[in-house]
Amino acid sequence: MADELPTMTLKAIGIVRNEVKERPARRDWWAETVSEIVIDPSLTEALDGLEEFSHIIVLYWMHRVASGEVPLKVHPMGRQELPPVGLFAARAPNRPNPVGKATVRLLQRQGNILRVKGLDAIDGSPVIDIKPYLPGYDSVADAKVPQWIANR
Amino acid sequence: MADELPTMTLKAIGIVRNEVKERPARRDWWAETVSEIVIDPSLTEALDGLEEFSHIIVLYWMHRVASGEVPLKVHPMGRQELPPVGLFAARAPNRPNPVGKATVRLLQRQGNILRVKGLDAIDGSPVIDIKPYLPGYDSVADAKVPQWIANR
Repeated sequence: MADELPTMTLKAIGIVRNEVKERPARRDWWAETVSEIVIDPSLTEALDGLEEFSHIIVLYWMHRVASGEVPLKVHPMGRQELPPVGLFAARAPNRPNPVGKATVRLLQRQGNILRVKGLDAIDGSPVIDIKPYLPGYDSVADAKVPQWIANR
Repeated sequence: MADELPTMTLKAIGIVRNEVKERPARRDWWAETVSEIVIDPSLTEALDGLEEFSHIIVLYWMHRVASGEVPLKVHPMGRQELPPVGLFAARAPNRPNPVGKATVRLLQRQGNILRVKGLDAIDGSPVIDIKPYLPGYDSVADAKVPQWIANR
């Protein structure tokens, strides 16, 4: 089947700028991080109206994650005491396609620059897409998660 | 700046299978759609533990969207009576990188096949990534949206 699976090419629409040069170990570390997303100026007009949303979804490329073979099992949240789970059951950055998805607060939009809070992307990460966060579409009221997450 | 923006290559990890051959006009049309996501069998083990989540995030490639130039402004939800907004302030499929992000209910996992409900991807869409839905990370309690969404 792998032979039939297509490849696709992405072109970055912008770049993340912040003070974070290395990925920290814990995801909750990022909550207060403020970043600038600098969008290709030729796409500035495509941001119009985004400032009416309090939150946006950022898809970005985790460019510093080692490429090549990825482990099929990982310890959730990097915690060695937790039994390994499949990588698609975890949010570890090391994935077949290292695409990150973050929902972040939009603090300000100024021309082609978005100022956001809580983006877990290091400085220089290529941005793939920006989408408005739609509560009725992007959130789930009754989602169930495994015990190892509920307990953390 | 566009010259400095990198390109990246994705390799599909699987394919969407369902009865939907053409994208319907309305997004809410998809709510009851059941799809199978057939994952590359070499990645089956990477799905272990996913069945403990009620909902998953699917990143997929909207392969039937016209490639090439995209309009910078669109009518939200395809409704001509609404004033155009920037494409990044809308969820229209025609984007510089046609990557869709859907949060869907996981009905069943059987080996390398995920049965899901509510995925707004047509038959044959390449799948880029599967992530567990984490309420504390993926949802926002107090998100604000513009009037044209609140009123719909």
